[in-house]
Amino acid sequence: MSSRKALRFGMVGGGPGAFIGAVHNRAATVDGLATLVAGAFSSDAAKSREQGDVYRLAPERVYASFGEMAEREAALPKDVRIDFVSIVTPNHLHFPVAKAFVERGFHVVCDKPLTTTLEDAEELCRLVKKHDGWRTDPARAGAGAIGDIGTHAEHLARYVTGLEMEELFADVSTFVPGRRIDDDANMLVHYTGGAKGMLSCSQIAVGEENRLTIRVYGTTGSLEWKQEDPNFLYVRHADRPMEVYKPGHAQLVRAAQHGMRMPAGHPEGLLEAFANIYGSALRVMAARRDGDAPDPLDLDFPTVRDGATGVHFIQSALESGRKRDWVDAAYSAPE
Amino acid sequence: MSSRKALRFGMVGGGPGAFIGAVHNRAATVDGLATLVAGAFSSDAAKSREQGDVYRLAPERVYASFGEMAEREAALPKDVRIDFVSIVTPNHLHFPVAKAFVERGFHVVCDKPLTTTLEDAEELCRLVKKHDGWRTDPARAGAGAIGDIGTHAEHLARYVTGLEMEELFADVSTFVPGRRIDDDANMLVHYTGGAKGMLSCSQIAVGEENRLTIRVYGTTGSLEWKQEDPNFLYVRHADRPMEVYKPGHAQLVRAAQHGMRMPAGHPEGLLEAFANIYGSALRVMAARRDGDAPDPLDLDFPTVRDGATGVHFIQSALESGRKRDWVDAAYSAPE
Amino acid sequence: MSSRKALRFGMVGGGPGAFIGAVHNRAATVDGLATLVAGAFSSDAAKSREQGDVYRLAPERVYASFGEMAEREAALPKDVRIDFVSIVTPNHLHFPVAKAFVERGFHVVCDKPLTTTLEDAEELCRLVKKHDGWRTDPARAGAGAIGDIGTHAEHLARYVTGLEMEELFADVSTFVPGRRIDDDANMLVHYTGGAKGMLSCSQIAVGEENRLTIRVYGTTGSLEWKQEDPNFLYVRHADRPMEVYKPGHAQLVRAAQHGMRMPAGHPEGLLEAFANIYGSALRVMAARRDGDAPDPLDLDFPTVRDGATGVHFIQSALESGRKRDWVDAAYSAPE
Amino acid sequence: MSSRKALRFGMVGGGPGAFIGAVHNRAATVDGLATLVAGAFSSDAAKSREQGDVYRLAPERVYASFGEMAEREAALPKDVRIDFVSIVTPNHLHFPVAKAFVERGFHVVCDKPLTTTLEDAEELCRLVKKHDGWRTDPARAGAGAIGDIGTHAEHLARYVTGLEMEELFADVSTFVPGRRIDDDANMLVHYTGGAKGMLSCSQIAVGEENRLTIRVYGTTGSLEWKQEDPNFLYVRHADRPMEVYKPGHAQLVRAAQHGMRMPAGHPEGLLEAFANIYGSALRVMAARRDGDAPDPLDLDFPTVRDGATGVHFIQSALESGRKRDWVDAAYSAPE
Repeated sequence: MSSRKALRFGMVGGGPGAFIGAVHNRAATVDGLATLVAGAFSSDAAKSREQGDVYRLAPERVYASFGEMAEREAALPKDVRIDFVSIVTPNHLHFPVAKAFVERGFHVVCDKPLTTTLEDAEELCRLVKKHDGWRTDPARAGAGAIGDIGTHAEHLARYVTGLEMEELFADVSTFVPGRRIDDDANMLVHYTGGAKGMLSCSQIAVGEENRLTIRVYGTTGSLEWKQEDPNFLYVRHADRPMEVYKPGHAQLVRAAQHGMRMPAGHPEGLLEAFANIYGSALRVMAARRDGDAPDPLDLDFPTVRDGATGVHFIQSALESGRKRDWVDAAYSAPE
Repeated sequence: MSSRKALRFGMVGGGPGAFIGAVHNRAATVDGLATLVAGAFSSDAAKSREQGDVYRLAPERVYASFGEMAEREAALPKDVRIDFVSIVTPNHLHFPVAKAFVERGFHVVCDKPLTTTLEDAEELCRLVKKHDGWRTDPARAGAGAIGDIGTHAEHLARYVTGLEMEELFADVSTFVPGRRIDDDANMLVHYTGGAKGMLSCSQIAVGEENRLTIRVYGTTGSLEWKQEDPNFLYVRHADRPMEVYKPGHAQLVRAAQHGMRMPAGHPEGLLEAFANIYGSALRVMAARRDGDAPDPLDLDFPTVRDGATGVHFIQSALESGRKRDWVDAAYSAPE
Repeated sequence: MSSRKALRFGMVGGGPGAFIGAVHNRAATVDGLATLVAGAFSSDAAKSREQGDVYRLAPERVYASFGEMAEREAALPKDVRIDFVSIVTPNHLHFPVAKAFVERGFHVVCDKPLTTTLEDAEELCRLVKKHDGWRTDPARAGAGAIGDIGTHAEHLARYVTGLEMEELFADVSTFVPGRRIDDDANMLVHYTGGAKGMLSCSQIAVGEENRLTIRVYGTTGSLEWKQEDPNFLYVRHADRPMEVYKPGHAQLVRAAQHGMRMPAGHPEGLLEAFANIYGSALRVMAARRDGDAPDPLDLDFPTVRDGATGVHFIQSALESGRKRDWVDAAYSAPE
Repeated sequence: MSSRKALRFGMVGGGPGAFIGAVHNRAATVDGLATLVAGAFSSDAAKSREQGDVYRLAPERVYASFGEMAEREAALPKDVRIDFVSIVTPNHLHFPVAKAFVERGFHVVCDKPLTTTLEDAEELCRLVKKHDGWRTDPARAGAGAIGDIGTHAEHLARYVTGLEMEELFADVSTFVPGRRIDDDANMLVHYTGGAKGMLSCSQIAVGEENRLTIRVYGTTGSLEWKQEDPNFLYVRHADRPMEVYKPGHAQLVRAAQHGMRMPAGHPEGLLEAFANIYGSALRVMAARRDGDAPDPLDLDFPTVRDGATGVHFIQSALESGRKRDWVDAAYSAPE
């Protein structure tokens, strides 16, 4: 629990039956850092009201369109209106919704993929630059296996290693008859500095659920982590036994301790991971609101530039699949 | 998210630095079922206020003693005062705090062990019977390894198998020089119906964190579950391969689905387990408040009688350890 | 492969269809240390001959009774007759067969339990003392769960920790209706030096196969090993991550390297474990035959005194089960 | 143990200190199917004799060159000379040694890779065809990561799925400065029938030992197996829990039971896997020697055509790496 005043937020999307809206709400609020006060949960006014009642919102803060919400919230007094908006709509709406709120000076948290085209993503980079202070969460993605889940793998590898892609070769497939988008992709990747890797994502792997996994081999050791068994980190060494790291220990580095809520032995899951991203972003927002410098350990969440990088990756992979050839995967989002 | 109106609750204990208070608060609120509105967080008035500020409570709802809190809350209008209180104080205060609130008609959620003596536990059973509608969460325990963690094992076995202990034989030890309470115990247990088992708890198991584990062998199959790796249930059969059950599947029984928040492949942890207990209790409280029959699937949380059973188990184990003999472990809490 | 001349051995028991005879033969010969040259595989002469043909033995070295075999082999020239005999008969024959060969000066490898009574076991201790040079392998056991598999657990704990039992309390059960011997036992154990433990063995654990497992907790670390997953040793520490040891590494202690045949990453199983016991015993026998001092690392196999200790453990556990009380488990086999 | 007369075999290579010679000898003999009677263990006559003494061979059956061995063994009476030869020399000698023995009508077991060029491999296919009855074990491979270990992965996938490669794209690297051959390769693979896959092999994966692993996804289920933990097969299904298969069960298909030596719960390792390959080949050889039809379940070991397919795979992968493009990987070895 922070001793700062909680932030107020609104949600666009996440109407009745939408799994991801509830996850965002829990992740944003579980640590007491934010309170949901407004929403345009559906383009169907009745459904939006229904969801607003579930969250027990004041009726006048539940809107039937994101445009109305952006306009009306912007007109409210500063200590009443929302501090940020979480966008959990279908992917094709990410861009217009984000644009509407960014242009009015709101912080935006956006599910992944940031947009469906790189042009839109770069336009958002520029808008954010112009309106400042803006971050996005590209945690959920788009169309096809690459956009839906391949971007998770791409981001995980980039976040853990700090390496940027230089070129990639993708073998993109649509296995299910009648499907018009990719449902499986295997990729070869070259990173800056000479590292090479493989990246695989599939929506036809029978019997698997998420199974997001990463292995990294370095010159003196290696790492392995499995998202479905997230409380264990396997560290291998050239000349001594493998070690298994677990959360909750004083021996861990500060950045790892920053994300822990529990003593050792109490397993955590996806909710805490999600809440860590929200937590860092919200503490930075609150610090800015209060005129303070943010804790450097909080500068650890995906920004609009990460979102644009993810969209570029999706495009590169699809392009490589079409060409059956290596493509340039290096990318630097607009400052 | 439920569509019922959220419950209001208060907390006794859980002042600055207390890990367990934050866990209770997250578990009670993560699903939007309850809101913290009052507290007596410490017997030091300044510390209680400090914690109240963290939770952003109205200053007039932050109290310096549980007695004052019970009295003043009871005097508030029904639609303002708390619906229930969560007790997360040191163990010796569980009884007087619970008593104060029960006698004023509040619902009580109490950390484990329910009390430090069986007499107090049975007194609470009677008070609850008299004042009705009362439940308790004996999820955290007392002094020594048996009280602190052995009760978790005892309750887990009872909850999973539905069996009651008949007699037990405990080998109780204090290994750390200078310690005055037990830090290790191994037990043989006989259950109703003829089942036999072993129960072990230790606070000197170097390198272990919680490692709460259960294995149950029946006539046609067996179960294994490990709390530190909680998303997997191992089911062995006499004549076919072991199966590994995971949450998030439509194939699971309704009671299992009742406790799930996420689609398959999204791991959950202790917070969700804790929130499931709170959730069931809160939905029952809310149903009663609204005059409705509770959902039978929600009648699945530990009651004051479970708390008394846990206290009886602790006493029996310590008695067996002293006598170096079998003791009668059968117990039926007062109706 | 050793550069010493191989030993010749005979087998008593292990006729057609007997699983354990084949395992003993493979374990004794897999490293080229011994050759099977004689046998009394069955008390049925035709079956004994049939098994002798499978092993391609000279017909005159295949006997119809162990008595005949002991007598005739003893009469052969020293460089022709067997160097040792492996006894893999039903348990009640272990004693008379071992006695017959020990009294004629042969080395004896005997499956577990050494005998069915402690008196017989101690008689063997004295005979071996008198005739010298004799060792036994108590690797397989007797009647009931304690004798069949409990002794494996008892020996594993003794071998790994070096601790001797002082007293034990056993909860011995026969669950399967109509069975006249124990099929399940849970025990509390006190060791010399103050260590305490639990030991469990069961023949009614549905869905389990062997699942022999040991965990040892010390003052600065702990060990865990699972026989069904034998290539991994889990080592936990108080203040740093768990380590996972695997075979095949130069970093291991010499005693561990002594038992390895393969480079790292090539998994081994029960056969190699069994062959390690045979290998040590055979190298010691061969060194004695050649008048050399044995390698100290080879003095690492169970002797007749281990066999007697195992028989004493079985008796103590059954006695405790009958008395429902602690019994003295300390034992020192006759020198 | 078979009731057939054991085969006699010789070994070329496997001199003092060679790990793989000892493994072949154990695998060939552990089930009593064959006896080592001859060898040209080294091109250094003294070393060859030294190794012959370790195996206790008759001095006149220990040769200083494979040419001498092939010639002299062929001149021995049929019931004395070797039935087959195992070739465990450095890779560049596989071809001339195999040729020398095939041309004289001996069965040949050859470590992998079969040869260092595809031309030589196909020449062997023709020679074997001409001289009949010949099989090879391409279980160990050549130069670089692809030849040394990539072929294991290629063969494992082909053996388990029955699919043939159609085309492949390989990203071949040499990471260690100064190395002249590949030490790491990642590949995309297209199989007949539309299946797609990835294949990775590396000799620079710090902290890994073998870690040979396979995952196969089908339309109704999937398989996962890990060579370092070989006693477990993970089977996932679309609509029910994952199953874990273990050896030793009557419920397994006959082909699986064919390779088991132990009851359930007794773990096996690489030695037994190797011995299964030898066992099938040896039983087929013995059946032919005796004029019998082989058991169809024994027709389950790699032949010279598998060896040639492995060599073709290595060449294709290296060619794709050079070209940075897809290459045709379809191959049909000469009949």
